[in-house]
Amino acid sequence: MNTFGNRFRVSIFGESHGPRIGVTVDGVLPGMPLGEEDFAEDLGRRKAGALGTTPRTEDDFPQIVSGVYNGRTTGAPLTILFRNENTRSEDYEGFREHPRPGHADFTANLKFDGFNDPRGGGHFSGRLTLAIVAAGVVAKKMLYFAKFHAQLIEVGGLKDAAAWPDALKAAQEEGDSLGGIVECTVEGLPIGLGEPFWNSVESQVSHAVFSIPGVRGIEFGDGFQASRMKGSEHNDPFPEHHCCGRHKHPQPPVTNHAGGVNGGLTNGNPLVFRVAFKPTASIAKAGIPGRHDVCFALRTPVIVEAMAAIVLADLAL
Amino acid sequence: MNTFGNRFRVSIFGESHGPRIGVTVDGVLPGMPLGEEDFAEDLGRRKAGALGTTPRTEDDFPQIVSGVYNGRTTGAPLTILFRNENTRSEDYEGFREHPRPGHADFTANLKFDGFNDPRGGGHFSGRLTLAIVAAGVVAKKMLYFAKFHAQLIEVGGLKDAAAWPDALKAAQEEGDSLGGIVECTVEGLPIGLGEPFWNSVESQVSHAVFSIPGVRGIEFGDGFQASRMKGSEHNDPFPEHHCCGRHKHPQPPVTNHAGGVNGGLTNGNPLVFRVAFKPTASIAKAGIPGRHDVCFALRTPVIVEAMAAIVLADLAL
Amino acid sequence: MNTFGNRFRVSIFGESHGPRIGVTVDGVLPGMPLGEEDFAEDLGRRKAGALGTTPRTEDDFPQIVSGVYNGRTTGAPLTILFRNENTRSEDYEGFREHPRPGHADFTANLKFDGFNDPRGGGHFSGRLTLAIVAAGVVAKKMLYFAKFHAQLIEVGGLKDAAAWPDALKAAQEEGDSLGGIVECTVEGLPIGLGEPFWNSVESQVSHAVFSIPGVRGIEFGDGFQASRMKGSEHNDPFPEHHCCGRHKHPQPPVTNHAGGVNGGLTNGNPLVFRVAFKPTASIAKAGIPGRHDVCFALRTPVIVEAMAAIVLADLAL
Amino acid sequence: MNTFGNRFRVSIFGESHGPRIGVTVDGVLPGMPLGEEDFAEDLGRRKAGALGTTPRTEDDFPQIVSGVYNGRTTGAPLTILFRNENTRSEDYEGFREHPRPGHADFTANLKFDGFNDPRGGGHFSGRLTLAIVAAGVVAKKMLYFAKFHAQLIEVGGLKDAAAWPDALKAAQEEGDSLGGIVECTVEGLPIGLGEPFWNSVESQVSHAVFSIPGVRGIEFGDGFQASRMKGSEHNDPFPEHHCCGRHKHPQPPVTNHAGGVNGGLTNGNPLVFRVAFKPTASIAKAGIPGRHDVCFALRTPVIVEAMAAIVLADLAL
Repeated sequence: MNTFGNRFRVSIFGESHGPRIGVTVDGVLPGMPLGEEDFAEDLGRRKAGALGTTPRTEDDFPQIVSGVYNGRTTGAPLTILFRNENTRSEDYEGFREHPRPGHADFTANLKFDGFNDPRGGGHFSGRLTLAIVAAGVVAKKMLYFAKFHAQLIEVGGLKDAAAWPDALKAAQEEGDSLGGIVECTVEGLPIGLGEPFWNSVESQVSHAVFSIPGVRGIEFGDGFQASRMKGSEHNDPFPEHHCCGRHKHPQPPVTNHAGGVNGGLTNGNPLVFRVAFKPTASIAKAGIPGRHDVCFALRTPVIVEAMAAIVLADLAL
Repeated sequence: MNTFGNRFRVSIFGESHGPRIGVTVDGVLPGMPLGEEDFAEDLGRRKAGALGTTPRTEDDFPQIVSGVYNGRTTGAPLTILFRNENTRSEDYEGFREHPRPGHADFTANLKFDGFNDPRGGGHFSGRLTLAIVAAGVVAKKMLYFAKFHAQLIEVGGLKDAAAWPDALKAAQEEGDSLGGIVECTVEGLPIGLGEPFWNSVESQVSHAVFSIPGVRGIEFGDGFQASRMKGSEHNDPFPEHHCCGRHKHPQPPVTNHAGGVNGGLTNGNPLVFRVAFKPTASIAKAGIPGRHDVCFALRTPVIVEAMAAIVLADLAL
Repeated sequence: MNTFGNRFRVSIFGESHGPRIGVTVDGVLPGMPLGEEDFAEDLGRRKAGALGTTPRTEDDFPQIVSGVYNGRTTGAPLTILFRNENTRSEDYEGFREHPRPGHADFTANLKFDGFNDPRGGGHFSGRLTLAIVAAGVVAKKMLYFAKFHAQLIEVGGLKDAAAWPDALKAAQEEGDSLGGIVECTVEGLPIGLGEPFWNSVESQVSHAVFSIPGVRGIEFGDGFQASRMKGSEHNDPFPEHHCCGRHKHPQPPVTNHAGGVNGGLTNGNPLVFRVAFKPTASIAKAGIPGRHDVCFALRTPVIVEAMAAIVLADLAL
Repeated sequence: MNTFGNRFRVSIFGESHGPRIGVTVDGVLPGMPLGEEDFAEDLGRRKAGALGTTPRTEDDFPQIVSGVYNGRTTGAPLTILFRNENTRSEDYEGFREHPRPGHADFTANLKFDGFNDPRGGGHFSGRLTLAIVAAGVVAKKMLYFAKFHAQLIEVGGLKDAAAWPDALKAAQEEGDSLGGIVECTVEGLPIGLGEPFWNSVESQVSHAVFSIPGVRGIEFGDGFQASRMKGSEHNDPFPEHHCCGRHKHPQPPVTNHAGGVNGGLTNGNPLVFRVAFKPTASIAKAGIPGRHDVCFALRTPVIVEAMAAIVLADLAL
């Protein structure tokens, strides 16, 4: 089912080459100022056009059709529509019978008995992340006290950003593609967000993040490296004389190996996690036509932020 | 909320040092033979007692109180209870005011206004994974066609299992602890399990796995390494002359860099994922009393299997 | 949250006088032929214009923007949009401060801190039932084996339909309004739909039906009258020599006082229930301007059918 | 699935003649004093033994096994167990092949492929309402500001309670049974409980109430009679000079034909609804052995209250 969240609930619909994609956000606080212009910055960050990204560009103008009245949210479901205009569906006709490696063509075709929309990946397309970014803008507005920051920290295994342009150009010339790693930090969260056991912050964030096409892994705080540390190295001690139940202003741990979460609940330190994106599946080298990103990970930091915001808005309500 | 799943639904309850912990499993297929003896093997794999594990041992006898009639499942909710017997609560009295590093003491105390049960971590205790293993046994019975196999592949950063006993002994002597990495493989799954976008196999498995206390990361297939590969290296090609919609017996990709999932749906190859566990938080070095595992990751492979089975049973229904 | 259903899931959005209202239906079977023309009959039955109904008429043209490809459902979320054109919002400006009796003005204003859209009832408007009828058309397509039939059996307390036109005219002249009772029958359902205890057929149908604005009661089979019968009168006996577990063709009870449900599960007899609608709240007599139905119950049978179909599609999946 | 509610969530398990029935309540506020003795009054009201009720009596002692620590709720899932002791299962052996009229025997047997527990109705038994009453006690504690009152207003069609004993005796002598109507009132609710459209107060209450075995109808406020009134009779006017958005103390309508709900949200007046119970299905006249209530409706008022409390606790969180 294409719905996520309990109290802040995001439902997406649409196909890459259909007339519209859209998103309905339920559980929005009433009274927040909201207009189309609020979406410009984040939608712009997701846009194609830069080095290493697809030449397919769209206007990506968000049309709010419900849930806003006189420039403020009403508390009723908020629906935002986007038109798909720049489509070249003829590129995709042959892929039902010859599924592309690394795409959903094969599995979707079997699951939906051959009735799925194959054009541009249909409902499985990365274009649906446009709706996610829009929902993320609404979530961030609700979490006005928190600061989200996601950025690429690796491209093609290179940590030095100065080396990325050459690597991207080289991959493009070879008709190949690169992956990358995004690190996301959220500051300013209250202590205690999350639910015990099944709905820890990590469970919910990872659930949402693995919905972004092309994610291969996620880790919090020290992550995989934590498994190679000793307890004495990985533990985050509390400040001395700490008495959590007594102080008016409880103090979080003094280090942050845990990435801001203890027992599945936020602990007052910044939430820190990293997401690994695979290299773009569609490569010219393998004879896949269409317009594609050399490294779609370049466009994902704002999507990762949006997913974190969607999860945290749900937990904060 | 302590419930997971839609069609195969697992709810857990209990505290580490309360009278009972238990699990209710809803959505169980009627007519499956099921008795207490079916739980022995997996519960045994989770048990303490081996090198590097806590000396706290329990009988862990599963009492089935509903959902089974004449030795077969009825289709009604199946509830299994376990007694807690070997408790030493006096160890934990001081931890409300002086929260232990790396535990839920601090965050739980704030979230529940100081009313949470602090004994042994209360509802946040790893002891609750006993209920998970029991639910996993039921899930595996339903997925009789699949083969689950999880094992430790690293302890304290060491890949060679022959080196583990010495490392464990050394850590124990230092009053310190170690982490580890578990790899889980599931073979025999049908093609097409999972849902597009929000409820991909990866989303659901990661959601469940991050519910296990102490998990720091998860990756599928090539995982984080995928972000350092080129598309031509990471893509899994299909067999030649592949026509997915036409064949009676669709063929999965010939390699498995993706870990058995395309577009969030199982593709017929083994599902492969790895889970990073942090070192045990309670260490003698830091003056934390109580009986603890030097490396609790040693006891987790069967828990990881159970989580995978719970998720896949839900998706398969 | 404006979502109903688990496996067949209906989400609605929009306001009476906003630019669009719409519905997203998730869980649609792939491969069903579906076009805008399939909605004409049911949308027409809901339309205004007849004696006793509002003079506000709309085109009510359904625009399918996702979930259909080449004239068939794809299995992805199906979204249908409707434009609101014939709006006269100036009628409603004064109602935030002077809430209309029998409407949501008062409660919605308090719940949403005065930010709800007040025009025409906003998101609480009966106009949203347009989206329900559309979702009902999709549900009925999936339940092709079942026959839905709802009709008015009382208007203003009159059982004789020949007396209704005079009663409606009289109420209109007095500036007053009438209520009515709708009876709905569903034939052809398989035995065993429904879930024990919380999700009985009656629980789910009543949940959905009370979502229609203006419903005051619902009863199944003999309904309230059953409480005045003896067990020997109300019980539905099974055919003689009945052996439910042995026969290939199990026989339902020979009478249908229960309205087609035993223990919350369909029993093979027609599902029969009745719904009481209050008289229209907006009456000229009380000085409420705007264009309103004298008896909105006249337009509800197709909405009741849609609600039953939505519930049964969810249970049948 | 045997779970109800989103934020206050009630899951039940057990069978009439199994070792235990029980209930898990999730979403309980931490810090409420709670002990076994708090359940005595409501469990006593449900008990058998009075004229017209079954001679099967049980201790019905509630065992709290999780979610309470030092006499106060912890915020973790609260599980309560009851033993079944006074069972006479041999009464029920023949009913799988010869299903009893008015029971779930027939439909459950087909739905669960003959594997359901047939003893005393198994999981479909009215005995499960014991767990509901227990959950209702917890819900009422959370809604300390509200007053719940349910009572029988009709037995066998008789409104005069003085006539009930004779009617009950007569039915018993005839080996027959009677039904009844329960009216429930809830005072003291805040304004604005409920959700627009799908999750109105009426939708949720009716959903819960139809989970009680033997319910045939429900109506709010004027109920079915509303459909026979004119708008000018049924509308509930607001006090003069009412300005809902401005006053610190908003005034509910001056009459209560609507039963305390406008637009699906509580309006500050008492919530009022009536529930019709069918006559007991098991009657000696038809040769059904076992110990049964002549009129089980006698025992239902406290169950109806519990259902209302469960729903309202969920909406109030």
